[in-house]
Amino acid sequence: MKVLGLITEYNPFHNGHAYHLDASKKETGATHTVAVMSGHFLQRGEPAIFDKWTRAKMAVMAGVDLVLELPTAYSSQSAELFAYGSVLTLDSIRIVDSICFGSESGDISRLSAVANILENEPSKFKVHLKEKLDSGLTFPRAREAALGLFLDCGTTAYGLCANDALGILRSPNNILSIEYLKSLSRLRSSIKPATIRRIAADYNSTQISGSICSATAIRECLKQGSSLEAISSVVPSASYSLMHSVAAAGLTPVTENSLLELLSYAVISKSDTLSSYCDIREGMDNKIKSEIRRAPSYDELLSSLKSKRYTMTAIKRMLMNILLGVKKADVEVFRRLSSVPYIRILAFNDKGTELLKKIKHSSKVTIINKVPRLDSISDETARKMLQYDIDSTDIFNIIYYAGCKHALRGSMDYIISPAYLSKKDRDF
Amino acid sequence: MKVLGLITEYNPFHNGHAYHLDASKKETGATHTVAVMSGHFLQRGEPAIFDKWTRAKMAVMAGVDLVLELPTAYSSQSAELFAYGSVLTLDSIRIVDSICFGSESGDISRLSAVANILENEPSKFKVHLKEKLDSGLTFPRAREAALGLFLDCGTTAYGLCANDALGILRSPNNILSIEYLKSLSRLRSSIKPATIRRIAADYNSTQISGSICSATAIRECLKQGSSLEAISSVVPSASYSLMHSVAAAGLTPVTENSLLELLSYAVISKSDTLSSYCDIREGMDNKIKSEIRRAPSYDELLSSLKSKRYTMTAIKRMLMNILLGVKKADVEVFRRLSSVPYIRILAFNDKGTELLKKIKHSSKVTIINKVPRLDSISDETARKMLQYDIDSTDIFNIIYYAGCKHALRGSMDYIISPAYLSKKDRDF
Repeated sequence: MKVLGLITEYNPFHNGHAYHLDASKKETGATHTVAVMSGHFLQRGEPAIFDKWTRAKMAVMAGVDLVLELPTAYSSQSAELFAYGSVLTLDSIRIVDSICFGSESGDISRLSAVANILENEPSKFKVHLKEKLDSGLTFPRAREAALGLFLDCGTTAYGLCANDALGILRSPNNILSIEYLKSLSRLRSSIKPATIRRIAADYNSTQISGSICSATAIRECLKQGSSLEAISSVVPSASYSLMHSVAAAGLTPVTENSLLELLSYAVISKSDTLSSYCDIREGMDNKIKSEIRRAPSYDELLSSLKSKRYTMTAIKRMLMNILLGVKKADVEVFRRLSSVPYIRILAFNDKGTELLKKIKHSSKVTIINKVPRLDSISDETARKMLQYDIDSTDIFNIIYYAGCKHALRGSMDYIISPAYLSKKDRDF
Repeated sequence: MKVLGLITEYNPFHNGHAYHLDASKKETGATHTVAVMSGHFLQRGEPAIFDKWTRAKMAVMAGVDLVLELPTAYSSQSAELFAYGSVLTLDSIRIVDSICFGSESGDISRLSAVANILENEPSKFKVHLKEKLDSGLTFPRAREAALGLFLDCGTTAYGLCANDALGILRSPNNILSIEYLKSLSRLRSSIKPATIRRIAADYNSTQISGSICSATAIRECLKQGSSLEAISSVVPSASYSLMHSVAAAGLTPVTENSLLELLSYAVISKSDTLSSYCDIREGMDNKIKSEIRRAPSYDELLSSLKSKRYTMTAIKRMLMNILLGVKKADVEVFRRLSSVPYIRILAFNDKGTELLKKIKHSSKVTIINKVPRLDSISDETARKMLQYDIDSTDIFNIIYYAGCKHALRGSMDYIISPAYLSKKDRDF
């Protein structure tokens, strides 16, 4: 058994994901695949468009053997924390041989060299970074500029020249890749990293053409209420069929804008404690408090909150942390864990069953199949982490089930079981 | 100057209110009228259908001279607390000569006698009440039964026989009247009570016919999106015209059902602290937590929460207290005040100006014309009370402005000034 680990969001699963999956299997020679996948709230500070069980089924039907949920407290966070939670999950199960991630660079040695600098923070680099931050740049821009200045000084110790590094920190998948590498290093993990160069459409492209396009384009299409037909050429047939099921059930794709009313209420009702939520930094609490009371749309809210200091994505994550009530103090604990307190299965196939057997044998991690009542969990960290997962599903479902309220039978995390899909299901 | 005080909700102001207003003026010989009016959340645990400034304007246009806001922390509460807050407001301004309220009974001496028993709680009455509560009756039913048993024993000390009292505690306006009388007694107020027998339609009747009908019927009509025409015969022309302005501005009448999503989010996000909110008694927190996650509508939520122990209205108030975050601990403080920390003006006319001058002369109460920033208020009780008022407006406005979000310019309590209406306005 040779196990490949993947870090995913599959929002929703499309042909580009299928390409990455197959290429990663080839690149690493894997016989089995386990993916850790964000639940209902994603790394870019957005809600998922479909529920996590449906998205996990799409993945298994496309050839992933086991899908585990990335706990919510890691999923809608900075690249660093998202990567740490994801790598931590894959490392904790003690069966993963390699991780393969997409990057714009496609060059694992260059990415590793940059990760090495960012992880070890040589003192000269640190000085440049502080200067750039003090000058008012956002963190990503400051870090990029500091890296350039550091390498310009002629150091060759990292096997990189300034030109090599140029632009690496400009691309979102490179940035995530570097964070995965830093996390592997921090955990002294035995997992081997590999990367596949991302092909075709940009993340933010909204064009649908050919057989591969961005998830952003697919979501735009779904948000605009276009017929599913429009995306049939860019998603595997199983994804397509599952999307039809979601539509037939009357479920409402969740978008940022559809969360605006709940977010407004969240800010008003929590206004005394806003600064206790993850990533809400000085001044932003008051700015959010005043802008939310006059924002006609989510986009206009974001524009009104945008500043030189924070990227749009950072602001979106702040807002999701308020909505989900993710507390700074809890995240500080989660950030320092050396293994996850539990893993949660979302979907699996027969090979996934083999993987689960091996996990039980190789690791001590608690495997959650049926979610236990929270008060039966004695470990406080596990209980808090799971509470965030359950609450985020309940909050997501206020919108997701808005068109079919009778179908909502309670806290769905307690009700929906992990999806087992046999080989037959895959071929439907 | 002879000043009449009225305790009102005006949701919305209709011909029955106009009748009560004129009859009360005659009954008391008043030259000036001041009404205390609930803001955006009402005594029966419901949101108001229109904003408080519009409703206050309707009242002034119909002949009330000054409308003051009943603080939110008193407005969506039990009859006892609602009455106490209202009477306290009218007593605190030190200019009111009489209060005149509608009652089904119409007999002030009988109502006073019952109030006397309930206020002083003779020991035999107390024993009966405890027995009846222990037997599982709701509080209103238990109190009624206990009163009957107490008077059946042949006491004549209160000038009442059991037959006299029979049914008095069955009618909502009698119950409120008795609470007003208890509050006047508790405050040793110099204000003289009077009552007018309520005429025409039942509170809950949903028929519109003739010139007088219940506010419930009018609201049902508005909720169903009927043309305003349908209610033109049962409201004064000024009310009618203001309702047209609201509709033209694109504002959405607020109903319980339209608050369901916000309430769901409130319960999920506050689930650890539900029992700290006003009136949430043992067991109800867990019941609310589980039922809200599968309630397809507000009505179905109420049905699932109904029990012998609590009336539907009591449950509705619990839900509003969670939505607005009204804390038990704060209400315990407000319940013991011997004067209100401030009065807030919603609307007034020239005679209202005379009343305000007299208030400044007769009482020390702070008059709020323009709402000050909360952090500028040193008195903690005043600050907390005002915070509830402002937050409840912001929460109400999430729904009220849903159809015209660009018109929402921030916290409207800071933005909208009290409405001054000259005699000319009244005659439009």
